[in-house]
Amino acid sequence: MNDPKKNPLDANPTGSVPKVVVSRLSLYLRELQRLVRDGHETTNSKHLGQLLGVTAAQVRKDLAYFGQFGYPGIGYRCQELIVEFKRILGTSEPWGVALLGMGNLGRALLRYRGFASQGFRISAAFDVDEQLIGQTVEGIEVHSMAALPIKVPQLQIKLAMIAVPAVAAQEVADKAVQSGIKGLLNFAPMTITLPDHVQSVGIDLAIELEQLSFAVVTHGRKT
Amino acid sequence: MNDPKKNPLDANPTGSVPKVVVSRLSLYLRELQRLVRDGHETTNSKHLGQLLGVTAAQVRKDLAYFGQFGYPGIGYRCQELIVEFKRILGTSEPWGVALLGMGNLGRALLRYRGFASQGFRISAAFDVDEQLIGQTVEGIEVHSMAALPIKVPQLQIKLAMIAVPAVAAQEVADKAVQSGIKGLLNFAPMTITLPDHVQSVGIDLAIELEQLSFAVVTHGRKT
Repeated sequence: MNDPKKNPLDANPTGSVPKVVVSRLSLYLRELQRLVRDGHETTNSKHLGQLLGVTAAQVRKDLAYFGQFGYPGIGYRCQELIVEFKRILGTSEPWGVALLGMGNLGRALLRYRGFASQGFRISAAFDVDEQLIGQTVEGIEVHSMAALPIKVPQLQIKLAMIAVPAVAAQEVADKAVQSGIKGLLNFAPMTITLPDHVQSVGIDLAIELEQLSFAVVTHGRKT
Repeated sequence: MNDPKKNPLDANPTGSVPKVVVSRLSLYLRELQRLVRDGHETTNSKHLGQLLGVTAAQVRKDLAYFGQFGYPGIGYRCQELIVEFKRILGTSEPWGVALLGMGNLGRALLRYRGFASQGFRISAAFDVDEQLIGQTVEGIEVHSMAALPIKVPQLQIKLAMIAVPAVAAQEVADKAVQSGIKGLLNFAPMTITLPDHVQSVGIDLAIELEQLSFAVVTHGRKT
């Protein structure tokens, strides 16, 4: 799905892009997509920075990790940058994603409208509940967790979202890794131990609430 | 709930702490809580940095936004830092949170185990579904959305999580703000327009998947 020959890290051969820069790349991509929707063909580092609340210098520094972009006197061509950023993020080609756990969170993720537009498609769901296995929910068939080692290679799935209760998360992660999953998005409020060749991103919702708390109390202090 | 006189931004009177520093503050706090659980009484910027994958210099720079911490020859006292960081983040005192929307996502949030330990308690839930209103789910009573202007001031709730479908998100946000909500956590994959005095944090799950995609393809290119 992703061509390893096209190396976006040529500009930075050590490959050590700070995580915060990679997450800003996603945010730049969102703003560029919005600019194109609003009819803009070009932008520049000052404008892009304003949209994200960072300086123009920061935008240029971030982009320099990945290569040379932009044209003198024009700035950046939005559509061109979108294509480049998707290539760098690895989302030029769509990813199939396995959904592990079909409780409330799993069902919410299945209905989430924000994945498809960015190139992610839940292509199979898994649960341990006998009542659910074999059923079709939102157009996706629910398989037994025991079927992971068969379905993951068959459907060439590389990414999975773990939406099982925290107590089951490590066991389900282990089984997913054994089945060939290379990246895990973990919603359980706990750390999962994984082998080095498997990547993971954890979503800690309490951190998001803390950021909100900080914003609210800081605003209160300032006004 | 939060005392505006205790200003953690004395060290930085402009109040302009970069968002990324505030989010690292949450991550430092998590690591400190883990260190205390594992029996550590003190730590230092090098160790704390290693846990987060940043340099010791970065840790010292981040902390300098908020004040003077640590002791020569000792480093940081974990418990002391936890108390300080919670004060800065505004979570020394627990926050009541309103849950807006009791579909699959709302129910998943209600069951989420990671909030309470960080000082967040869902204290009321709201929905438009007549079948749900008046019921008690996971110990929390479900009120009508129309009851927001009564319940929010009555329960002194300042934060809300929006877990309604994207088409309803702006309307529900407007009603929450009119009812006195000061901070909104938004799960809908869209931007909500809010007055300046209201803070918001959006959770874009596709961004998390993009970060995972980048990690997987970058690892694949390197090996």
